Amino acid sequence: MAVKRIGTRTLRFDNRPSVAGYASIVGKKEGEGPLAKEFDKIYDDSYLGEASFEKAESRMQQEAFERAASKSGFATGDIDVIYAGDLLNQCIATSFGLRSSGVPLVGLYGACSTFAEGMMLASMTVDGGYASRAAAIASSHFATSERQYRTPMEYGSQRAPTAQWMVTGAGACVISDSGGGIRVTHATPGRIVDLGVIDQNNMGAAMAPSAHDTLTALFTDTGTTPADYDLVVTGDLGAVGLELLMELFKKDGVNFAENLGDCGLLIFDRKAQDVHAGGSGCGCSASVMCAHIFDKLRAGSLKRVVFAGTGAMLSPTSTMQGESVPGVCHAVVLESDVER
Amino acid sequence: MAVKRIGTRTLRFDNRPSVAGYASIVGKKEGEGPLAKEFDKIYDDSYLGEASFEKAESRMQQEAFERAASKSGFATGDIDVIYAGDLLNQCIATSFGLRSSGVPLVGLYGACSTFAEGMMLASMTVDGGYASRAAAIASSHFATSERQYRTPMEYGSQRAPTAQWMVTGAGACVISDSGGGIRVTHATPGRIVDLGVIDQNNMGAAMAPSAHDTLTALFTDTGTTPADYDLVVTGDLGAVGLELLMELFKKDGVNFAENLGDCGLLIFDRKAQDVHAGGSGCGCSASVMCAHIFDKLRAGSLKRVVFAGTGAMLSPTSTMQGESVPGVCHAVVLESDVER
Repeated sequence: MAVKRIGTRTLRFDNRPSVAGYASIVGKKEGEGPLAKEFDKIYDDSYLGEASFEKAESRMQQEAFERAASKSGFATGDIDVIYAGDLLNQCIATSFGLRSSGVPLVGLYGACSTFAEGMMLASMTVDGGYASRAAAIASSHFATSERQYRTPMEYGSQRAPTAQWMVTGAGACVISDSGGGIRVTHATPGRIVDLGVIDQNNMGAAMAPSAHDTLTALFTDTGTTPADYDLVVTGDLGAVGLELLMELFKKDGVNFAENLGDCGLLIFDRKAQDVHAGGSGCGCSASVMCAHIFDKLRAGSLKRVVFAGTGAMLSPTSTMQGESVPGVCHAVVLESDVER
Repeated sequence: MAVKRIGTRTLRFDNRPSVAGYASIVGKKEGEGPLAKEFDKIYDDSYLGEASFEKAESRMQQEAFERAASKSGFATGDIDVIYAGDLLNQCIATSFGLRSSGVPLVGLYGACSTFAEGMMLASMTVDGGYASRAAAIASSHFATSERQYRTPMEYGSQRAPTAQWMVTGAGACVISDSGGGIRVTHATPGRIVDLGVIDQNNMGAAMAPSAHDTLTALFTDTGTTPADYDLVVTGDLGAVGLELLMELFKKDGVNFAENLGDCGLLIFDRKAQDVHAGGSGCGCSASVMCAHIFDKLRAGSLKRVVFAGTGAMLSPTSTMQGESVPGVCHAVVLESDVER
């Protein structure tokens, strides 16, 4: 078999599948942030007209998928397979949101790394010839997450300064064997890294070591350095985690200058919107990638980007049982073939 | 790119990756059933010496993985990537069980179809040259599931006759680009099928239509009929679901004679062990495949098998909100290259 793997664990996509189309759907607060003009649709009603927050989140997945397919020039039935997930118990936003699609669905759970995980698998599936078109989709909803992970919102609990704000949003993209604009060239799957952080209000600190681990593997495997990319964007370490990631790299003698960013810091104006350490949730990186980042790659104003999706693989049960917070990070490398 | 897809949605693995090794770990009740002698390890203590049922389930995943690697002739560090999942909220059995492995982990959620989903992705990854060795792992635990999905066991709730018994068990296999014995030749990913079953105590009825959908696609895409296989084994429809699946095929004029089975019916003696409609849970098909079925393929007493993993993609929240139960089924085709 032809080996499409380089170094310790990086996948090489020689056929350079393209991001043929993408769409993002977000909530009111996200629509008041710095990326407001770049999202496809902003819902002011956090129920989206549905009977529950969970059904609203499902609806966002469905709409993001349908728009991404349409913007790619395809009918939803032209998509061969979907890789998708969310944060809800048993990933119901995904299974109910994509129930009527009629498209094969491979369910994922990677916490907030899910969109990167989905992009990696969709790209591998298309690059390998197992599908012509594969979609990656992820979502989160502030209200479904808060009541599931933390306390009922009615309690009005004080938020820790290190806490991140769960994004209401969904992003979907279609990876295709034809077309151009944005290419997926590599992906590096992450292993679980757990340095013993037990504060469930500090996900950034829990996830930063996994981002460091995966990015180090990616750079080593591909013989690149941060300077070879216009942007390395994590999703979502927030302000605390991003600072820690820079420190970890500094210890290795690697300096990120201007080219390190985070989806959780891009989506909100931290100070004005009172979101503490930044945004988070599967829908955060999914909606930021499927608007701001892909737009810039498509325009050629970003030429080469690493998207490093980070996830905190805990549950309320594991926390109550005294467990620490395991982190994981999956990375994909994107290139623009647009001459600016 | 070379097309490795046939018909509407079946993946063709021309390099015929092999199931190089596999292992199963089960609990006491499973160890009292008809397959007792075939499992690698039976734990009489449902805590496995751990402090909680959840930690016990994690421990089963870890042990199943380590044994599967070892039985394949590999160190765990030789495995390039793991595809794994379970039924717990946020899949903590997986993330904590495989935390110390140091192997890249791609988290899945496919309910009880997870092991088939993992085998499909691991086989694609190896067939495509993206990994030399990829593992698929899934687990479930009676006590973690019962208290999460239903009522605390202390209530002693009456079980419905259509209910299935959640298996305590884990199964792991290593798919490799070298070796032989058992080959994975095709896989068919499933779409969500939901005919409106709202009884969460009748998963078999909810999942049977998805098994019918995926198996029909597999037969059509590959130009085969049930008679071309020694065994078509679902996991886990139980007695009610399997009956319905046969009815659905009968309407199409397709008759399964002796060659249709179900992991949930194989693992327990339904009458003697009082498990109502049979076994279920991610760990049911995982442990039955990684003992009984792979053993027979390796011995050459089964030559060609379809493993159709079925999942019910609901959560207690979706049920409480009045939703029906969406089903999904992913299928893989296995061949023995052992001459009997």
